[in-house]
Amino acid sequence: MSILLAVQDWDSAGWVARFKRNAPDREIRLWPDATDYRGVRYAVCWKPPQGLLAKLPDLEVMFSLGAGVDAMMHDPELPDVPLVRIVDPSLTGRMTEWVVLQVLMHHRRQRVHDAHQRDKLWGRVPQPAADAVGVGIMGLGVLGRDAAEKLIGLGFDVAGWSRTPKDIAGVTCFHGEDGLRPFLARTDILVVLLPLTPDTQAMIDFDLLGGLRTDNHMGGAVLINAGRGGLQVEADILRALAEGNLSGATLDVFVEEPLPPESPFWTHPKVTVTPHVAAESDPDYLCTYILRQIENFEAGRPLENVVDRSLGY
Amino acid sequence: MSILLAVQDWDSAGWVARFKRNAPDREIRLWPDATDYRGVRYAVCWKPPQGLLAKLPDLEVMFSLGAGVDAMMHDPELPDVPLVRIVDPSLTGRMTEWVVLQVLMHHRRQRVHDAHQRDKLWGRVPQPAADAVGVGIMGLGVLGRDAAEKLIGLGFDVAGWSRTPKDIAGVTCFHGEDGLRPFLARTDILVVLLPLTPDTQAMIDFDLLGGLRTDNHMGGAVLINAGRGGLQVEADILRALAEGNLSGATLDVFVEEPLPPESPFWTHPKVTVTPHVAAESDPDYLCTYILRQIENFEAGRPLENVVDRSLGY
Ligand SMILES: NC(=O)c1ccc[n+]([C@@H]2O[C@H](COP(=O)([O-])OP(=O)(O)OC[C@H]3O[C@@H](n4cnc5c(N)ncnc54)[C@H](OP(=O)(O)O)[C@@H]3O)[C@@H](O)[C@H]2O)c1
Ligand SMILES: NC(=O)c1ccc[n+]([C@@H]2O[C@H](COP(=O)([O-])OP(=O)(O)OC[C@H]3O[C@@H](n4cnc5c(N)ncnc54)[C@H](OP(=O)(O)O)[C@@H]3O)[C@@H](O)[C@H]2O)c1
Repeated sequence: MSILLAVQDWDSAGWVARFKRNAPDREIRLWPDATDYRGVRYAVCWKPPQGLLAKLPDLEVMFSLGAGVDAMMHDPELPDVPLVRIVDPSLTGRMTEWVVLQVLMHHRRQRVHDAHQRDKLWGRVPQPAADAVGVGIMGLGVLGRDAAEKLIGLGFDVAGWSRTPKDIAGVTCFHGEDGLRPFLARTDILVVLLPLTPDTQAMIDFDLLGGLRTDNHMGGAVLINAGRGGLQVEADILRALAEGNLSGATLDVFVEEPLPPESPFWTHPKVTVTPHVAAESDPDYLCTYILRQIENFEAGRPLENVVDRSLGY
Repeated sequence: MSILLAVQDWDSAGWVARFKRNAPDREIRLWPDATDYRGVRYAVCWKPPQGLLAKLPDLEVMFSLGAGVDAMMHDPELPDVPLVRIVDPSLTGRMTEWVVLQVLMHHRRQRVHDAHQRDKLWGRVPQPAADAVGVGIMGLGVLGRDAAEKLIGLGFDVAGWSRTPKDIAGVTCFHGEDGLRPFLARTDILVVLLPLTPDTQAMIDFDLLGGLRTDNHMGGAVLINAGRGGLQVEADILRALAEGNLSGATLDVFVEEPLPPESPFWTHPKVTVTPHVAAESDPDYLCTYILRQIENFEAGRPLENVVDRSLGY
């Protein structure tokens, strides 16, 4: 019945207190203090060290405290028990806020207005209606769908791309390799909300960015990535910005995080950097969510949001 | 049957061509070229000189090319014929884009992230969910209602304030003098979408700003004004920013426009200036809208969006 918390870089004492408060009848152990792993049936993880989970002889379910499980999937010894990820409506809402904000910043040329303000210039910029602007969302999962819905509400011409076919009201849906080029060709603003998997690794490259529509009021296509840094080839983004195909980018995620001081993104005039904060979760919600799933599991009901290990998300 | 175009500072040749193209059977005259005002039944105006409209002996309807008619209402000799204002769905959509953008910029602390980026700092800021943030919209007309709806969709706790009582799904509605203080007290982010009238002139003052809620993740209340500059007392905004009650402001409109170079707003670190561009109209739409109204009028059907001259909007 024991739960092991393996939480690095995220308030482990707070997590212990929260689980003890919400599940007073359970034994809560904390890595690395705990030395005896017998009887641990559930592991709650945030950046667990590689190999740790394989050492738990009685493990039945692993919970990731993040919506993305790429870090856990990288563990070559990851045990063959269900891996449950987070789906949290308040995280989804925060991601949509961030996506809508960044899409509007580019569409409404806020950085141009900022530059005009610095120059005390009462300037004008073209202001097409949102329906003239193609926003393309890569990844039509929990996050991509919600962002799509809100962007449609604001009038944008929204398309999406996913692995399997989709039918979403108001969204022009593309899928798979064959759908990628036509999807890109009608996209002025590309929003990346994909998981990082062997299939999506490094896919945002110069060639892909070259497929975007550049004939727009922003003077080029825009890249917005809140999926994972590993999806993007950073040198290629810089090249696309330099060669004029990309007019701007907003990046919340990077190949190396925290973004190292020598990264050219920090000072690039066309790049907005946010420090992997697009969507945080409410820890109390996550704790309740995990304990509810454990209850369901023990009552023989199915687990929700189980990762497909063969797909990696 | 003639139409007089009295358009200053806005592409008068383009307006003439557009009206001629869309109404080839009508006589289109242009101020100041036209000298004979007889037979002018309709005037289409953008910043018309004071007294001009009083000189049109056969005038039956005046059309303002703007959504706000305060500039025309300032003409003491304004003839006593119907004054029709613009209601344009694409203008409404653009205003909502701007409002949502500016609300999210403050809520998601984009300026703090910008400062962190300049310092190459991988920093964190508190990120409450939108439902913890009170957005208050002054003016629940065509523009205020649409912005409210989209902000509700993003999860904000939205209230509104108007002259007459309202009942809008999802919006906590206040009205009149008695409703103002309670409205302000639950508002973290104040969005001003009022018309400028004798009643609203200079109402955004130190006292009003002092009524806003300051106990929030932004470290103070926020003012966003896209109504008219005449609604605000600019020295009072600066004082509220200096004394800590306001944590930030985004202003699209100013007492004097273009904003003079000596205005402290240009360089104020907590102020975002946009140059009266929150919502532009599509000129082709406006032309069609006005010609359709003229047809309706001539067929004995009622005019739409006629300004109440006693109220001034
Ligand atoms: N920056 C942040 O703060 C933050 C916060 C939370 C999450 N995230 C990231 O956001 C990602 C998405 O989250 P989510 O909850 O929306 O995930 P999800 O519900 O699992 O959705 C993933 C979407 O990506 C699509 N996809 C996966 N592999 C693909 C491929 N090879 N080709 C085409 N489409 C593919 C899926 O297609 P199908 O629908 O066809 O399966 C699905 O539509 C997470 O994995 C995480 O990396 C970032
Ligand atoms: N910055 C830009 O680019 C831009 C573009 C377009 C418009 N605007 C401005 O936006 C303004 C609003 O446009 P709109 O189309 O939404 O106007 P509207 O439909 O006439 O709505 C005006 C709203 O203000 C309220 N109001 C008026 N006087 C009031 C008072 N004394 N006390 C409380 N509430 C009062 C009205 O209350 P009731 O509903 O009770 O009558 C109504 O809800 C325009 O007048 C214009 O100045 C700016």
